[in-house]
Amino acid sequence: MERTLTKQTPAHVGEEVLVKGWVNVRRDHGKLIFIDIRDRGGLLQVVFNPQVSVEAHQVATTLKNEDVIEIKGKINARPEKLVNPKIASGTVELEATELVIVAHAAPLPFDTSKETLDAELPTQLDHRAITLRHPSVKAVFKVQATVIDSFREFMKSQDFFEFQAPCITPSTAEGGAEVFEIKYFDHKAYLTQSPQLYKQIAMTAFERVFSVNKIFRAEPSVTTRHLTEVVSLDAEMAFINSWTDVRDMAEETVRFVLKTLGETCTAELTMLDATLPTMIEKTPTYTLAEAQEKIFAQSGRDVRGEKDLNPEDERTLCSIVKEETGSDFVFVYGYPTRQRPFYVYPNDENPEINEGMDLLCRGVEWLSGGRRINDYAQLEKHAEIWEMDKSKIKMFLDAFKYGAPPEGGFAFGAERMTMQILGLKNIREACMFPRDLSRIDERFAVADEK
Amino acid sequence: MERTLTKQTPAHVGEEVLVKGWVNVRRDHGKLIFIDIRDRGGLLQVVFNPQVSVEAHQVATTLKNEDVIEIKGKINARPEKLVNPKIASGTVELEATELVIVAHAAPLPFDTSKETLDAELPTQLDHRAITLRHPSVKAVFKVQATVIDSFREFMKSQDFFEFQAPCITPSTAEGGAEVFEIKYFDHKAYLTQSPQLYKQIAMTAFERVFSVNKIFRAEPSVTTRHLTEVVSLDAEMAFINSWTDVRDMAEETVRFVLKTLGETCTAELTMLDATLPTMIEKTPTYTLAEAQEKIFAQSGRDVRGEKDLNPEDERTLCSIVKEETGSDFVFVYGYPTRQRPFYVYPNDENPEINEGMDLLCRGVEWLSGGRRINDYAQLEKHAEIWEMDKSKIKMFLDAFKYGAPPEGGFAFGAERMTMQILGLKNIREACMFPRDLSRIDERFAVADEK
Repeated sequence: MERTLTKQTPAHVGEEVLVKGWVNVRRDHGKLIFIDIRDRGGLLQVVFNPQVSVEAHQVATTLKNEDVIEIKGKINARPEKLVNPKIASGTVELEATELVIVAHAAPLPFDTSKETLDAELPTQLDHRAITLRHPSVKAVFKVQATVIDSFREFMKSQDFFEFQAPCITPSTAEGGAEVFEIKYFDHKAYLTQSPQLYKQIAMTAFERVFSVNKIFRAEPSVTTRHLTEVVSLDAEMAFINSWTDVRDMAEETVRFVLKTLGETCTAELTMLDATLPTMIEKTPTYTLAEAQEKIFAQSGRDVRGEKDLNPEDERTLCSIVKEETGSDFVFVYGYPTRQRPFYVYPNDENPEINEGMDLLCRGVEWLSGGRRINDYAQLEKHAEIWEMDKSKIKMFLDAFKYGAPPEGGFAFGAERMTMQILGLKNIREACMFPRDLSRIDERFAVADEK
Repeated sequence: MERTLTKQTPAHVGEEVLVKGWVNVRRDHGKLIFIDIRDRGGLLQVVFNPQVSVEAHQVATTLKNEDVIEIKGKINARPEKLVNPKIASGTVELEATELVIVAHAAPLPFDTSKETLDAELPTQLDHRAITLRHPSVKAVFKVQATVIDSFREFMKSQDFFEFQAPCITPSTAEGGAEVFEIKYFDHKAYLTQSPQLYKQIAMTAFERVFSVNKIFRAEPSVTTRHLTEVVSLDAEMAFINSWTDVRDMAEETVRFVLKTLGETCTAELTMLDATLPTMIEKTPTYTLAEAQEKIFAQSGRDVRGEKDLNPEDERTLCSIVKEETGSDFVFVYGYPTRQRPFYVYPNDENPEINEGMDLLCRGVEWLSGGRRINDYAQLEKHAEIWEMDKSKIKMFLDAFKYGAPPEGGFAFGAERMTMQILGLKNIREACMFPRDLSRIDERFAVADEK
């Protein structure tokens, strides 16, 4: 007999089916035993009635949460008042005639059968193998997988070429702080902090490139917004006419991701009580100076002349823009040139400010990017002013030495974006196997091998 | 004026267009100057005729290979005998009326304008920023991107869920040799050698999972088949009825990848003189013992009783199977249990051999996988016999302690598969930024920071 997924059962009313999955929860009601069985498609209510099968009912009395089972039985429609609109199979239930326990689960360290997980986050992460099974946790990763996959889908639709950026790098091009060192045979090497230089190299061959790759940061403190290993979604495009081409591509990318989430993750968004942010037809764009004027005018806080927006500025600006335009998003560009990396393009009229940009949403940064320097002489000069070791970025400089068009790109983090879309309080919730100062899978014991 | 890609030009005969790209090569013929311009779509022949534009012709006399240019002009059909069937724009040429040099290229270290790159592989890799632009090199990465993307596409079509496996691991679960150590704050950590344990954990939540992730191996010698960082394509599936379900899924995955390559990479395969291997309707499967009998019967080499196939055995077996069935592929399963990792499922009737499998093609291994142990007690016992440190794989063991169904999976390397499909001699050709004992981007200087 072929297996039927729980979500397919409403199409099989009156038929015999075989379902397989885990015991999500068991409820005994007098002589009847109810369980919810969980498979990759969702949940299904099963009833064991001794008048239908003494044997199945007998085995069901021994069922524990997370046991793996196979059940044969008949799909019955539920009376209208007993329909459960929260699950895909909510209009039916399974009347069991046979039950096999495929694998027994040990007693759980805490109850995982409620609608929300009743454990602190560190405890949840200590028991990731169990908590990952919870529908609310799976929903987070469904959203994240959709963010990543819809990013790739949009990039491909725009003729971007997917490449694989390396994790192991020979040097710390963008500054030596917060980088992990690897013992690489007789040499030192480092875990990449960004595929930036590689995507720019690949751009000079393929024009439009994107990558989904790991980046690493030896963040020396425990915060709610940083992990040591995250997924970076990167794009770079050649032959732009202006930095606004990069901005527009970034905007359309985010728009497509949101649209896809709205179409394919409604159940997950509802379960997690999340509302997608509003992107209006054309996201407002301000220079840093304009943004600071707006913040001053609205809040009285005079941040004019500051070199960047601080977190409070970002929240104030976003609330102003939301009120004025209805947009949850706002682009800010034109930061002081020396505040950003050496490769960011300085404005032609005013080289003191650059054509780097950030996309903010609901008070926080979602995405960074901008136009890059493509003229080799200018890039070399910037590398010198920024005191880069040119010998360590030779391959990158070569890409421009041998002819590179006007170009730019952008990047955003999959975990950060997932966290912000879902309004999660801690980025660890948006990472299946989060790594930080005090944890790789398990928490480090205090006396661990130092 | 909107840019036209070179591959689109045959649809614009008689029209004015603007094209942008790199000078692939320049040829002077008396008063006429010809160039091939290269963009992300391919090549286009451009002619500069002083009788059409004195100015454009004058600038064209200064053009050097790899200069970045913009050209306006008219698309003319070529006479039939001058059609170039090797390029998408081969039926037309561009008669230039305006030429702008957007960026100048420095003189190249070697000629990159011929059909094949005239430099040894180490030299090519030393100059990756340039050689990556060569059509024959770009073709390799088009094939690789298609392998990776079609793997994902097939997995999604089979209801597999994409997850992100970590690179940083707390311990060296599968043996300590050839692993890179990271200085992780006050602790030691390691670069992952496989997402194996994580995909099995994720499988207990999502049933069917796949990942495209980096794996690392501190290969201490320079070989043509090993890199220190590669892309692993991994799948794991729950609720199998037999190890053959895993085999069949692996077979259909490879079949889909080959089908997609055949449909979307014909130009690249032709350029690289590669023929896709033949997969017949049902790929032959032999036990190790059966394979050894075949090798003995055909070649006289008595390898019966050996614990694995050696490279010569693999070649002999593949040629036998090819002759007998027409298949370039063959599955081998049933290896000695103790020769494989602790999690591989031992055959129920004969526990001395296991249900691990390899897929061979044209004499080499493409893919490995098989059924895994899902019973917690058995898994624990194996971990003990294999002398695993159970405290270091607690999260993995937990996934099975709390109920796991019969399951299995498989993995293959993107670079290895690209190399073998294209018949490349060195895996470095199948990696955009290859890392090995003696190279991370640049080759290490002998006296480098040891």
